[in-house]
Amino acid sequence: MAGFQRQLEESADRVTVALDALLPRPDGPEKPLISAMRYAALGPGKRIRPFLTLAAGRMLGAEERGLLRTGCAIECLHAYSLIHDDLPCMDDDDVRRGRPTVHIAYDEATAVLAGDALQTAAFEILTGPETHASSSVRVELVAGLAKASGAQGMAGGQMIDMASPTRDNDDIGLITRLHRMKTGALISFAVEAGAILSRADSDVRLALEGYAHDLGLIYQIVDDLLDAEGLPDQTGKATGKDAGQGKATFVTILGVQAARERAAHLGEQAKAHLDPFGEGAAILRAAVDFVLDRRV
Amino acid sequence: MAGFQRQLEESADRVTVALDALLPRPDGPEKPLISAMRYAALGPGKRIRPFLTLAAGRMLGAEERGLLRTGCAIECLHAYSLIHDDLPCMDDDDVRRGRPTVHIAYDEATAVLAGDALQTAAFEILTGPETHASSSVRVELVAGLAKASGAQGMAGGQMIDMASPTRDNDDIGLITRLHRMKTGALISFAVEAGAILSRADSDVRLALEGYAHDLGLIYQIVDDLLDAEGLPDQTGKATGKDAGQGKATFVTILGVQAARERAAHLGEQAKAHLDPFGEGAAILRAAVDFVLDRRV
Repeated sequence: MAGFQRQLEESADRVTVALDALLPRPDGPEKPLISAMRYAALGPGKRIRPFLTLAAGRMLGAEERGLLRTGCAIECLHAYSLIHDDLPCMDDDDVRRGRPTVHIAYDEATAVLAGDALQTAAFEILTGPETHASSSVRVELVAGLAKASGAQGMAGGQMIDMASPTRDNDDIGLITRLHRMKTGALISFAVEAGAILSRADSDVRLALEGYAHDLGLIYQIVDDLLDAEGLPDQTGKATGKDAGQGKATFVTILGVQAARERAAHLGEQAKAHLDPFGEGAAILRAAVDFVLDRRV
Repeated sequence: MAGFQRQLEESADRVTVALDALLPRPDGPEKPLISAMRYAALGPGKRIRPFLTLAAGRMLGAEERGLLRTGCAIECLHAYSLIHDDLPCMDDDDVRRGRPTVHIAYDEATAVLAGDALQTAAFEILTGPETHASSSVRVELVAGLAKASGAQGMAGGQMIDMASPTRDNDDIGLITRLHRMKTGALISFAVEAGAILSRADSDVRLALEGYAHDLGLIYQIVDDLLDAEGLPDQTGKATGKDAGQGKATFVTILGVQAARERAAHLGEQAKAHLDPFGEGAAILRAAVDFVLDRRV
């Protein structure tokens, strides 16, 4: 586990350096916008999504530069979603990862625009020939990222979340769908991108899809567990928030114990999807344990 | 001119029908999001950007279906920018084209998400193989749209606009840059997309770039003239707003007469760029007159 933690940090550092080079420099009269984009995208973060892209892609022999650029694009997309989710009209959060959120550090208009422009930057980064020599691979990445993050992916999930299924609602199907769209789709794409960049065949893709699907759900269940139990100084954001708003979560529906068991079960299932890859998938297996055991 | 108006309306109708088919149907728990996206994108509008894509592409012999899809993608991008520009933290507009803006008709969170998801939809539409058989053409379209609309294009221009150059500021260079980024870049891309889809050579592209550059500026100068002089029931939105906020515009800096002259001069220049295309460019020439003379 210590070895995994080190690899995750190493990958996060590489992604941060690459992102710093890929994002525009604050210059000209549009400077505050670029500065806010950089504040959000280059701030502290585990960078778990780019890590998954790198891990899956390396296992399958994809080129390092393309994996890194694609990981950066996914991180830009993720950063945009956090900025907009934190807005007063959405979750109204003042603090994220121990720092003021973008609309607090800058202002609301700049936060909206910084999110908008980070989404655009994600797609722009993917189009660069340095991402992959083949334009059909690049266009497949753009299509996959769009599908994962649009109305029938991440944004749709946030819409369902905003409509606030309450604790009275014990529809586990709806909550699963919500999180499958809101967080799962982008996590799945992060893994899938490694396969796209290595031009993996459909068997490989299907196995990784199953893995990523389970991993995304585990991620959310653990999020709900941390929200229900965590301490603010551990997670760097306000906790107990969902429960306080009377929102339905995996924990309010299943209870702490059953939620934990479900996560553990999904962990076994996620690892089983990796069987065909043997020892090469060790790091992806370790990622499951990391997500299961994470305290932040 | 009556002929042009008819062609513009015909093209707008075709774009609306195509958009209706391309956007997802309101269904499932994410329904309000999709409904808001459709409200914004399918509402009344001149659809001048898709018109330019169709006109330039037809002149150069590009395929109709790809032109239409690309025009729809650009219209989605444009619709997203209007939703976000209208938000309370931005221009705070309640009415657009005679209808309640999205955050009034729905709510603020839904408006932010609908804008986000329309941006994503724009890129997704471009990636479809029906847009062009060649993936390198599709990836070029994605790259061009991203460049035109990101931090160093449309979003950057809106940032400069938010920083509100006031009437005391008579920096015509800054105002020109603002509008070149905020509206000009996307108008330019709309024309350029026709050239990309027809795989035009660099001479053709350069000429069309010059044309689109001038047309975008004319569009904004006329906007400022309409804002200074127009009546609310003609433009379907509040007028006198920029002047009321003490914002610098082409009109406050140059005065009405000189602004009009500058637009006319740019019109001549725009048409001169079309000389190499002879009679084939008649409709693009007519577009210049239309933009110069528009009352809404």
